[in-house]
Amino acid sequence: MGRFITIEGPDGAGKDSVLERILPELRKHLSAELVVTREPGGDPIAEQIRHLILDPANTAMDERTEALLYAASRRQHLQAVIEPALKRGAIVLCDRFVDSSIVYQGAGRGIGEQAVADINAFATAGRVPDLTVYFDVPAAVGLARIQAHRKNQQFDRLDQEADAFHERVHAAYIRLAQANPQRIVTVDATPALADVSAAALAVFKDRLSEYWTED
Amino acid sequence: MGRFITIEGPDGAGKDSVLERILPELRKHLSAELVVTREPGGDPIAEQIRHLILDPANTAMDERTEALLYAASRRQHLQAVIEPALKRGAIVLCDRFVDSSIVYQGAGRGIGEQAVADINAFATAGRVPDLTVYFDVPAAVGLARIQAHRKNQQFDRLDQEADAFHERVHAAYIRLAQANPQRIVTVDATPALADVSAAALAVFKDRLSEYWTED
Ligand SMILES: Nc1ncnc2c1ncn2[C@@H]1O[C@H](COP(=O)(O)OP(=O)(O)OP(=O)(O)O)[C@@H](O)[C@H]1O
Ligand SMILES: Nc1ncnc2c1ncn2[C@@H]1O[C@H](COP(=O)(O)OP(=O)(O)OP(=O)(O)O)[C@@H](O)[C@H]1O
Ligand SMILES: [Mg+2]
Ligand SMILES: [Mg+2]
Repeated sequence: MGRFITIEGPDGAGKDSVLERILPELRKHLSAELVVTREPGGDPIAEQIRHLILDPANTAMDERTEALLYAASRRQHLQAVIEPALKRGAIVLCDRFVDSSIVYQGAGRGIGEQAVADINAFATAGRVPDLTVYFDVPAAVGLARIQAHRKNQQFDRLDQEADAFHERVHAAYIRLAQANPQRIVTVDATPALADVSAAALAVFKDRLSEYWTED
Repeated sequence: MGRFITIEGPDGAGKDSVLERILPELRKHLSAELVVTREPGGDPIAEQIRHLILDPANTAMDERTEALLYAASRRQHLQAVIEPALKRGAIVLCDRFVDSSIVYQGAGRGIGEQAVADINAFATAGRVPDLTVYFDVPAAVGLARIQAHRKNQQFDRLDQEADAFHERVHAAYIRLAQANPQRIVTVDATPALADVSAAALAVFKDRLSEYWTED
């Protein structure tokens, strides 16, 4: 029935950069179909929901409304994209999933981690990732990386409150990893990209050993 | 802090018909501002969410996605319309609220009444109606009333499965009323409209006695 793997970590942890580097290796060595996705994942209904959340005109959106919309979009993406792929035996790699809502909406926004976990448990109806690769960096490091690559000066607007938000997100990720040691594997994402990529590749090779071929 | 009152009952129970008849009496006798609303209640974000749910193009919508979207729309309407009205001391009459999701999505669609109650508890964050007036009619009676007033023959398409759906909805309403005797007052909605209206008016007069003026 395939394998469901999620990729998590604070902004700027390097999730995309690492994936880009190791995907050729995964495609070469894995004996199963590999599906790489992220919400809303091309599903038209999930896209419409995400559009609503991200529309700058919707500034009056309540934060619980937003959390429910994220859960709705996730549900639709899960049913339309992930579940069918798992059913045909694919390995699904999903960039961010329930954990992101728990740490960003639950801890970051302050709605409550358990409450956000609960509505997402409804959305996922028992589907839990077989493996979550968590890229761990201090909030400041991730933000500095993004900042360094920005062309404009927009980032000067990040005030103390935004810093506190990202600290709460990072602390919540660490709590999740500690509470779910079987599911969540932490990769130290502070070293150079080549080293983080090698560490991540080793995790995939270890946890997907029955799919791994050396030729 | 005002009063929050919801109106519930199966399709065709007569919620709109009764309200239309008794609203002039309520406006005449109640000493507080009266706000009559129904979801999405004119809030632009709640409207957009409802539009998504009702768009006939979205036939591939998963039923849990739909339940989460109803909860999101409800949250937004609650925060934008109901809570501010209650805060200024108004009596808010809302046509359908959480109970409708519990019976239609939870029981009717079969997602589960408790699960739907739980995501709606997140949406309402502790806000529960002070009073719910439940108009009780057997499913067949409500459906027959709607059918009788339809001009076209569309209704012949209501098959056995639809009947079973409406039976589940009605049974779930009765369970809710039995489980919440303080909050939910049942009005028998099978008699003639004038009689149902008189019975409903008596409930309002009784439960809103401190707002009731005779002049
Ligand atoms: N190990 C690393 N060392 C230094 N810079 C890095 C490292 N990993 C990624 N970066 C840089 O940090 C920036 C953010 O990386 P990336 O977009 O991969 O992060 P992300 O985890 O996908 O972030 P987001 O959550 O915002 O999508 C990029 O400019 C990238 O080049
Ligand atoms: N007590 C009654 N006896 C006979 N017919 C009635 C009675 N109450 C309402 N009706 C008729 O039943 C139909 C449905 O009534 P109404 O629209 O008020 O129901 P409702 O509860 O608001 O339904 P819905 O949930 O579909 O909005 C209308 O045509 C109305 O005239
Ligand atoms: Mg990224
Ligand atoms: Mg009505």
